[in-house]
Amino acid sequence: MPDLNELFKQAQKLKNEISRVREELKVKTVEASVANGKITIVANGHQEVQKVKLDPSVRQIKLSDLEEQMLSAINQVMQKSREMAKREMAKITGGIDLTNVPGLF
Amino acid sequence: MPDLNELFKQAQKLKNEISRVREELKVKTVEASVANGKITIVANGHQEVQKVKLDPSVRQIKLSDLEEQMLSAINQVMQKSREMAKREMAKITGGIDLTNVPGLF
Repeated sequence: MPDLNELFKQAQKLKNEISRVREELKVKTVEASVANGKITIVANGHQEVQKVKLDPSVRQIKLSDLEEQMLSAINQVMQKSREMAKREMAKITGGIDLTNVPGLF
Repeated sequence: MPDLNELFKQAQKLKNEISRVREELKVKTVEASVANGKITIVANGHQEVQKVKLDPSVRQIKLSDLEEQMLSAINQVMQKSREMAKREMAKITGGIDLTNVPGLF
C-alpha cells in the first residue's frame, strides 16, 4: 500500500513546479530566421508569437517566395517553442512529457 | 468493483476515436485574415501552417505595420486551430478536453 499522504505531497510539489515552469515559459523566447535573416519570428514557450521582424529588403523578394518563407518561419518557430516547453518540463518531471496536459499549458 | 473488461473496451474505443479525429484534424483547416484580406494564413488542426497568402498590395503597407499584421494573423490562426481541435475532440470525449494529452496530438 503506497503512502497516500506522501504521494499527495509529491503531486502538490510537482503541480507547483509545473506552474513555475509554465510562468517561465511565458517569458522565455525562441526565434526562427529565414531568407538570410530578412524574416525573423520570435515566440514564447506558449506558442505565442511575440515579434515579427522584417528587413526592408523583403520588398524585393518575389511574392510567392515571400509567402513560402513566411510559412517556413512560422512553422519553425512554433516547433522550437514546443521543443523548448518539452525540454523545460522534462527537467522537473524526469523525462515525462507533461507539456500538453490539459489545463496546465 | 467496476467491470475492468468493459472499462478496457471503452478505453480502447476512445483511443480509436481519438486517432480518427486526430487524422481528420490534420486535413481540416482554419484561416485568419487581416489587413482587409491582404494577409491570410491557413493552418490545420495540428497548429501547422499550410498556406500564407499575400496580396500584392502588401508592398504598400508600412513595414512596421506589416510586422504587426503578420503577428496578429499568426496568433489568430493558431488560436483558431487550437479551438477547432478542442471542439472536435469534445464531440467524442463528451466535453473532456483531451486535445493536449501527450502523445495524442
